[in-house]
Amino acid sequence: MVKVGVVGATGYAGEEVIKILMNHSGVKISSLQAVIDKEEPFSSIFPYFKGKVDIMCRKPDPDAMAKDVDLVFLGLPHKVSMDVVPAFIKAQKTVIDLSADYRLTPELYLKWYGVSHKDVSNLPKAVYGLPELYKDEVKAAKLIANPGCYPTSVILGIAPAVKGKYVRTDTLIADSKSGASGAGRKADLALSFCEVNENLKAYKANEHQHKPEINLILSKVAGSDIDVVFTPHLIPMNRGILSTIYMKLSKPIDTKGIVGIYKDFYKDKPFVRVSDEGKLPQIRDIVGTNYCDIGLKATGDTLIVVSCIDNLKKGAAGQAVQNMNIICGFPETEGLI
Amino acid sequence: MVKVGVVGATGYAGEEVIKILMNHSGVKISSLQAVIDKEEPFSSIFPYFKGKVDIMCRKPDPDAMAKDVDLVFLGLPHKVSMDVVPAFIKAQKTVIDLSADYRLTPELYLKWYGVSHKDVSNLPKAVYGLPELYKDEVKAAKLIANPGCYPTSVILGIAPAVKGKYVRTDTLIADSKSGASGAGRKADLALSFCEVNENLKAYKANEHQHKPEINLILSKVAGSDIDVVFTPHLIPMNRGILSTIYMKLSKPIDTKGIVGIYKDFYKDKPFVRVSDEGKLPQIRDIVGTNYCDIGLKATGDTLIVVSCIDNLKKGAAGQAVQNMNIICGFPETEGLI
Amino acid sequence: MVKVGVVGATGYAGEEVIKILMNHSGVKISSLQAVIDKEEPFSSIFPYFKGKVDIMCRKPDPDAMAKDVDLVFLGLPHKVSMDVVPAFIKAQKTVIDLSADYRLTPELYLKWYGVSHKDVSNLPKAVYGLPELYKDEVKAAKLIANPGCYPTSVILGIAPAVKGKYVRTDTLIADSKSGASGAGRKADLALSFCEVNENLKAYKANEHQHKPEINLILSKVAGSDIDVVFTPHLIPMNRGILSTIYMKLSKPIDTKGIVGIYKDFYKDKPFVRVSDEGKLPQIRDIVGTNYCDIGLKATGDTLIVVSCIDNLKKGAAGQAVQNMNIICGFPETEGLI
Amino acid sequence: MVKVGVVGATGYAGEEVIKILMNHSGVKISSLQAVIDKEEPFSSIFPYFKGKVDIMCRKPDPDAMAKDVDLVFLGLPHKVSMDVVPAFIKAQKTVIDLSADYRLTPELYLKWYGVSHKDVSNLPKAVYGLPELYKDEVKAAKLIANPGCYPTSVILGIAPAVKGKYVRTDTLIADSKSGASGAGRKADLALSFCEVNENLKAYKANEHQHKPEINLILSKVAGSDIDVVFTPHLIPMNRGILSTIYMKLSKPIDTKGIVGIYKDFYKDKPFVRVSDEGKLPQIRDIVGTNYCDIGLKATGDTLIVVSCIDNLKKGAAGQAVQNMNIICGFPETEGLI
Repeated sequence: MVKVGVVGATGYAGEEVIKILMNHSGVKISSLQAVIDKEEPFSSIFPYFKGKVDIMCRKPDPDAMAKDVDLVFLGLPHKVSMDVVPAFIKAQKTVIDLSADYRLTPELYLKWYGVSHKDVSNLPKAVYGLPELYKDEVKAAKLIANPGCYPTSVILGIAPAVKGKYVRTDTLIADSKSGASGAGRKADLALSFCEVNENLKAYKANEHQHKPEINLILSKVAGSDIDVVFTPHLIPMNRGILSTIYMKLSKPIDTKGIVGIYKDFYKDKPFVRVSDEGKLPQIRDIVGTNYCDIGLKATGDTLIVVSCIDNLKKGAAGQAVQNMNIICGFPETEGLI
Repeated sequence: MVKVGVVGATGYAGEEVIKILMNHSGVKISSLQAVIDKEEPFSSIFPYFKGKVDIMCRKPDPDAMAKDVDLVFLGLPHKVSMDVVPAFIKAQKTVIDLSADYRLTPELYLKWYGVSHKDVSNLPKAVYGLPELYKDEVKAAKLIANPGCYPTSVILGIAPAVKGKYVRTDTLIADSKSGASGAGRKADLALSFCEVNENLKAYKANEHQHKPEINLILSKVAGSDIDVVFTPHLIPMNRGILSTIYMKLSKPIDTKGIVGIYKDFYKDKPFVRVSDEGKLPQIRDIVGTNYCDIGLKATGDTLIVVSCIDNLKKGAAGQAVQNMNIICGFPETEGLI
Repeated sequence: MVKVGVVGATGYAGEEVIKILMNHSGVKISSLQAVIDKEEPFSSIFPYFKGKVDIMCRKPDPDAMAKDVDLVFLGLPHKVSMDVVPAFIKAQKTVIDLSADYRLTPELYLKWYGVSHKDVSNLPKAVYGLPELYKDEVKAAKLIANPGCYPTSVILGIAPAVKGKYVRTDTLIADSKSGASGAGRKADLALSFCEVNENLKAYKANEHQHKPEINLILSKVAGSDIDVVFTPHLIPMNRGILSTIYMKLSKPIDTKGIVGIYKDFYKDKPFVRVSDEGKLPQIRDIVGTNYCDIGLKATGDTLIVVSCIDNLKKGAAGQAVQNMNIICGFPETEGLI
Repeated sequence: MVKVGVVGATGYAGEEVIKILMNHSGVKISSLQAVIDKEEPFSSIFPYFKGKVDIMCRKPDPDAMAKDVDLVFLGLPHKVSMDVVPAFIKAQKTVIDLSADYRLTPELYLKWYGVSHKDVSNLPKAVYGLPELYKDEVKAAKLIANPGCYPTSVILGIAPAVKGKYVRTDTLIADSKSGASGAGRKADLALSFCEVNENLKAYKANEHQHKPEINLILSKVAGSDIDVVFTPHLIPMNRGILSTIYMKLSKPIDTKGIVGIYKDFYKDKPFVRVSDEGKLPQIRDIVGTNYCDIGLKATGDTLIVVSCIDNLKKGAAGQAVQNMNIICGFPETEGLI
């Protein structure tokens, strides 16, 4: 049994990691930590876990956790993870970091997160944990930069098209819609029920901090500079991201053709399902699962792609466990629905 | 034109008062105040009001407001109103206080709100602003203690039954369900979208601070001590309270009979509608309006009453304006739907 | 007092017309009709209206209604309105039709609605009731083709840009998100609570029947052929449409510049509000009102426009009353918030 | 491997059975049937199951299914199950019926469901599948009448109190709140999103068809006639039932005491969790799981019980699988979270 720990156990992503791991055949949840007022059994904080995960949830202490675990998930806010990672790396533990702290270059990090990166020495070790693109690198990784939720949906929706040069790279638009859990568990008036419910808004239009992450990875896939116009929206639902992507076809191809190309691209990837011609996925198809469902429609010279994930599964905790499975030699789908 | 001010203009109740007043033929919104970071036009804080309510929203300063208004609505948290009321009373302004600060005796206030009342001298002047019971007193009032949302729905649902001694007073149960706006506009993890949505809970079972208010008023109505078992619940919707009330009949009476009694009790009250036999009201019947809709069913020796209000209208801002209308000599329904 | 009737009074749009008219100073609701099982007071069908709109709701009979009214609103499904309009036109009544039946040419109607138009003779008399573009024509109209909800949000969001040739017309993308009431009040599994709630989907991607309506009007505005890529989405909320529109700028212009252009375009239009630079509107800003709020952002060579309406107000009933106000000589904003 | 079939595979309960079984180690899903327009792979109807449950979904044909399965789940509407059960019983298959058809006596069935029972000969064989009360009977059963969702929450909430005679049996009130999936998957205007969302209603107050089921079982538990006043409410959420139960204590006992009694009563029951003194459960604690969480509060002479279940799990499919586990000799918790 692999002994795992979770730092940030009380956040939405941390809680979801624990929900997955408690039904995983190959791991033992050995240590939980979070910023809490008092230390108590995890199931006292979240009665959901009563009888399932009753171990103590402790205040953050990476060194203490490092003694008890082989692998650690960090469900911490951006800018906090990089304070914690070095201790685990030094103790030679495998780290799967769900924050954005190890996804960008130091320059991009400073620009988009507004602070200098504090752990530049470990940054080059980080592998971008999107197994559909980087499975071999993930296998050998000691530090995983687990992808952001929006980037996962957008990158998987665009990658086959730009890889095969089926679309022009100067007109890529991603209009993403996310449930509220994507913003994390926190007291914030803008996230309160009455502000989100019966409301809908675009925010940070083309200036969201996930934009450079999308561009960085897609540029590598395309082999040329990619700049996606990216607008996220907040939807009154708990979980799920649906990205509607608009691209200009660079050569004549119909829906059937492009569906075939995508199916081929993802043919050995257990967590990407490409819809048949004439069908588009919706959130209910993937909510609670680790799937990314992708539907396509070529209309005139426009390619419309609809890419759906559960932001807490494939967009965070599920993908993190998928990465762990690959690293630890478990079946890639173990514990994941 | 009556010049009115609102302190606490950015809370849900304050905002709702302003929405009503901006379509009221007899008043001018002369002054708005709230705890805000910087003073700016009200419509900059809430773009909803652009072109409608563009006056500045100022930081709290009762003395300054008193110079500009004839009447003031206080949409402040409990324990804050009593700091502000004296200034307006001293300046001889009419005050309609939407908080709980002037609803109880000093003893009950200390017991249920945990602090001593700071304005005991003005407390006896306060009139409990439930016009269906106290219209004459409201007419002459200078200080209105505007009823709580739960108490409004429960008191109106029980009053005719206990007044006429149709039910035993030792078995009164009020099971109330409220939308999330009842908790006020604030950053609070327990009120965040993902915690409230797809969830449902009972809270403060029989120990909610609205219980003594219910008991105090109903005891006066009944002429004997009333103790209602009161359990509130938080429902994933923005607004509305539905109270399901269970009473034991003290004499044989059927649904038709009790419907007749309630209709008679409320026959001249423009904002209470009693459903015909065989019908029960629901939230959609009253949401956005100042109505309290009441349905009844006698079954065996049990009387079931369903009482519905919009917690921000009849449960707060609407009732406050209704009180203002009575005080100022406007038609009781002016500005209210 | 203008005597008005509503056919289709029990649909969402018909009900909303009645909610507006019951607070309108210049009209009398004289006749209500709908496809119902038995004729009863309107307030028996919808207890919301008890004490407000208690007149009988009758089964459809245009000739009978024509005797009682000066002007009629038709809140009927597509393909049904054109059966009813001729009777009212013949009786020389003003007709405001909320369906799509009089918005397109016969050719487009056949193509997109799948049936031949049955009232081709009256079709040329119809005025497209978007007062921001066609106020003069509306003034003189006897038959209004009230715009669709999606087209209202998209056309108002794009018109100033294409009118002034600030954008290329070959890359117009409208990604629209709508609440569920847009689909009408009907028993339909796909619209049931558990299918819509906690779900999100794109549908009829670039083949929705509102697409030709958008293109027809915008082509007139632009003076050249416009083909908008239009993808609607169903959002788990009751009301509201937010359209996120992506266009390629044809000349260098910054956000401030384009905001100025839009403000100028709509400067005398009481129901369009253009957000200041740096702000984007959201549904809560306009829900329950007749406003269309528009925000803009120029980023690189892309112009992002966010256009918000309440689909039942500016997208249907509110706009219908706005048209009535113009036709009848009332202030354009009478009865509308 | 036990070969199982599901009739009514496309209903909410049937779908949920399949979701559980696809992760169950001891069964093979061998046959699926439902009332559908055309036979196609189950994963074509529900893309959620793509790659997981791809077998054909057939039109109803009990005899055909009986050849392929050892055990069958019936997720059929009331009054339909009793047409189908005889064929499976005759073929000596184990039947777990999720409808109400085998829960009552013929007399009660006629009274509450309005038709005579069509399979009176098999009725006595049916075991009421509430394992917390009837585990031994379940073990030996060939026909399980799987309990209703409301009855499960109410019976488990009341049983220990009436069994031990801690409460008076003449004043039992159950105020139940249910998510919308309890009404089943069907096209029904009253269940459409806009009618349920932002709404709340009581319905069938003390005349819901689950009332006799509650009374029948609790009378057996108490050893005397029980008549619970039962009022269900429809809540705008997908799943979950929270029942708030009010009872009058027949002897003085405090919260700690009654919590101890309930904990003792359920001490060997893996799916009932009794909250510690001072805590009340909420829907989020149990949603997606097979748990019934029960919280208690003694206040004056009143005992308040809050009982929470997921209506599709412990209230339907989860309990059905729990029954299957007991019958087939699997661990009682296999496949269930």
